[in-house]
Amino acid sequence: MEHGSEVLLSLFVIFVGAQLGAEIAQRLKLPGVVGEIAAGCVLGPSLLGWIHPAEALDVLAEIGVVLLLFAVGLETRLDEMKRVGRSAMLVGVLGVIFPFALGSLWAHGAGYDWAKSLFVAAAFVATSAGITARVLQELGVLQREESRVILGAAVIDDILAMLLLGIVTALQGGQSLRLDHLAIVLLEAVGFVVVVALLGTRVMRRSSQWLEAPINPLSPLTIVLALCLGLAYLSTQFGLAAIIGAFLAGMIASETRQRETLEHQTRPLLALMTPFFFVMTGSKVELSQLADGTTLATLAFITAIALVSKLVGGYLGALPLGRRGALIVGVGMMPRGEVGVVIASLGFAAGVFSPRTYALIVAMSLLTSIVTPPLLALLFKNHVPAAPAQTPP
Amino acid sequence: MEHGSEVLLSLFVIFVGAQLGAEIAQRLKLPGVVGEIAAGCVLGPSLLGWIHPAEALDVLAEIGVVLLLFAVGLETRLDEMKRVGRSAMLVGVLGVIFPFALGSLWAHGAGYDWAKSLFVAAAFVATSAGITARVLQELGVLQREESRVILGAAVIDDILAMLLLGIVTALQGGQSLRLDHLAIVLLEAVGFVVVVALLGTRVMRRSSQWLEAPINPLSPLTIVLALCLGLAYLSTQFGLAAIIGAFLAGMIASETRQRETLEHQTRPLLALMTPFFFVMTGSKVELSQLADGTTLATLAFITAIALVSKLVGGYLGALPLGRRGALIVGVGMMPRGEVGVVIASLGFAAGVFSPRTYALIVAMSLLTSIVTPPLLALLFKNHVPAAPAQTPP
Repeated sequence: MEHGSEVLLSLFVIFVGAQLGAEIAQRLKLPGVVGEIAAGCVLGPSLLGWIHPAEALDVLAEIGVVLLLFAVGLETRLDEMKRVGRSAMLVGVLGVIFPFALGSLWAHGAGYDWAKSLFVAAAFVATSAGITARVLQELGVLQREESRVILGAAVIDDILAMLLLGIVTALQGGQSLRLDHLAIVLLEAVGFVVVVALLGTRVMRRSSQWLEAPINPLSPLTIVLALCLGLAYLSTQFGLAAIIGAFLAGMIASETRQRETLEHQTRPLLALMTPFFFVMTGSKVELSQLADGTTLATLAFITAIALVSKLVGGYLGALPLGRRGALIVGVGMMPRGEVGVVIASLGFAAGVFSPRTYALIVAMSLLTSIVTPPLLALLFKNHVPAAPAQTPP
Repeated sequence: MEHGSEVLLSLFVIFVGAQLGAEIAQRLKLPGVVGEIAAGCVLGPSLLGWIHPAEALDVLAEIGVVLLLFAVGLETRLDEMKRVGRSAMLVGVLGVIFPFALGSLWAHGAGYDWAKSLFVAAAFVATSAGITARVLQELGVLQREESRVILGAAVIDDILAMLLLGIVTALQGGQSLRLDHLAIVLLEAVGFVVVVALLGTRVMRRSSQWLEAPINPLSPLTIVLALCLGLAYLSTQFGLAAIIGAFLAGMIASETRQRETLEHQTRPLLALMTPFFFVMTGSKVELSQLADGTTLATLAFITAIALVSKLVGGYLGALPLGRRGALIVGVGMMPRGEVGVVIASLGFAAGVFSPRTYALIVAMSLLTSIVTPPLLALLFKNHVPAAPAQTPP
C-alpha cells in the first residue's frame, strides 16, 4: 500500500551491514567504525552494488554525522576547551600549512599549473572531525586533553579550510584576491563560533529550567535537537561545515542541568543514525578507478603525503602536551573523510581536476579515514592501559 | 564545506514547527498530533510554502511512522492480541465493507462508471494506523482492550484493502478477476503475518539472551531495529504497508526480557523522527484546490460518508465491548491519512480520477485524520477520568 520499498531495503542493508562490520572489526580489536566504513566499501557500487547513491541516503548520513558531533559536543565543556585554546590554534594552523604546502608541490610536480595545484592542495587540508570523534567516543577518551585539542583544532581547521577554498577558487577563476572580502568572511566565521559558544553557554547555564516548560515530557531533548539542527544550518550559512554548528549546539547543551539525561537519550539516536554516515562514506570508494599499478603507486604516495603532512603539523602544534600526546593529536587530525571528497567534487565539477585526480583524491580521503582509527586506538591503549574499550550503555 | 544546507533548513523548520504545533494543541487540550499535522498544513505549499516536497523528507517521514508502529508493537503482547482476535476480525471486515459500499455509491452518483467508482471507493477503505496509534500512545491507553481491537483490526484492514486494491485495479484495466490469484495473494499476506507473529514471538521468548551477544553495548536495540527495518521491507513485498511489518517487529521484541530498556530507548527515536511523518502528512493538503463553495460542500459530504461508514462498521464489529468501547473502536478506525493519499495518487496516476476528485479524496483523507484525535481523546477522557494525559518520560 506504500511506496519507497526499495529505500526500506537500502536502509535495512546499510544498517545490518554496519552492525556486522562493526562487530567483526571489534572482534579483531579494531574500532567499530573501521568495520562500518569497510561494510560501505563492500556494499557499495564498487563491489556488491547493493547500495546505490540516493539523495535520501545522503541526507540520513548527514543527520547521522550531525547527531554524532552534537553528542561529542555534549561531552565537551567550553571552559575545558578554553584551557586548550592555544594548543588547538597552533595545531589547527600548522595542520593546514603543512598539507597545503606538500599538496600543492605534489600537484605542480604532477603537471598542474600553480593555480590548479593550489586547488588540488585544498583537498589535502580539511580534517573530517566525524571519524576521529567517533573513535574518541568509542574509546571513551573524550574527556582527555588530547581529545579536546583535536576537537578545538578541528573547528579552527574548518574555518581555515573554508577560507582557503575561497582563495583557491578565486585564483582559479583568474580573479584578483580581495583581501578585505576574505577578512570579512574570516571575521564572520570566527564571530559566529565565538558568539554562539560564549552567548549560548551563558544563556543555557542561567536558564536551563525553561527547557522543561513545554508539556512534552521529552522537551529538553526536543529543544536541544532543534538547536542542533538550527545551528547546523546556520553554520553552513557562514561557510562552515554543518557539524561545526552541531558540535557548538552540543557544547551549549552540556551546560544544562539535564546534561546526563540528554547524553543518555542521544545514544539510541546515534545507534540508529550514525551507521548511515560511515557506511555511505565507505560506499563512495571507487575501486575500479584505481585498478592499475601506476595509479595505486600514486595513491600510496599522495596518501603518505596527506598522512605525514597532517601528522607533522599536528605533532609540532601539540608538542606542549608531550611527545606521546602530540603524536595522538597528529594522528587524530589525519582523516580527510567526506570533507576531502566534497572538495574533490567541487574541483571536478569546476573542471580543475582530471577524472583520475578526482578518483585519487577521493580514495586518498577515504584511505586516511580507514588508517586513522586503528592507529588512534593503538596509541590510546598503550597510553592508558585501563581506558575502557566501550562507553557503557 | 558541505552540501545539502537547504535540506538542513527544511529539517529545522519541520522539527520546530512540529514542536510548536504540538505545544499549542496540548495547551488547547487537544492531542499533540493535531498540532503537528496543522503545522504541516501551515508550513506546506498551500500556505507559507516553507516545506517543499522532497524524496528525502518522505523517507524521513516513512522512517518516523515505521518507528512509531514499532514502538506501539513493543507495548503489545501477542497473547493479548489473540484474546481480541474475533472482535478485531469483525471490526476489520465490517470497517471495510461499509466504507466501500457507501464510497462506490457516492462515486457512481457523481458520474463515474462502476469500474471507476469501485476504484474511488477503495480510497475510502484503508485505515491509517499511524494517527490512531500515536493518539493512543499519547493518551497512555495502549494497554486497553479497545486499543488492542483497533490495532488488530488495522492489520486485518490493511490486508483486505490490499486485496481490494488488487481487485479494483484489475476491473479498471478490464481484466477478468482471477479468483485463484486473489486467493494466493490473500494466503501469502495472512501467512506472512501469522508466521512472523507466531514464530517470531516464540523464538524471541526462548532466546533473548543472544540479543546481548554482540560487543556493541546497545546491541539489543540495534538488533531489533534491524528486525524492524527488515520486516517493514518484507511486508511491502507481500503487498502490505511497511508499518504492518514494523508493528509485528515491535510485538516480537516485546517478548524479550530487554523490553523495558527497549521501550525507554525508543522514545528519543520517536521524538526525533515521528514529527517528520505528521508534518509531511499535513503539508500534503492542497487548500487551493478546494477554494470554491461547491467543492467545499462536496468535501464535507464525502468526509461525512468516510467518517460515518467507518464508524458504523467499527461500532457494529466491536459491540461485544459495550457501547462506549464500540464507539471508541469505531472512532479509532476513522483516519485514512497517508494511506488514502497513496491510493488517490495511484488512481490519479492511472487516469481514473479527475484532478478534482483527487484533491477531494486527499483532503478527505487528511480531514479524517485531523478530526479523529480530538474525538478519541474526548472519549477516552470521559471513559477513564484518571487516565494520564501523557506517558511519563
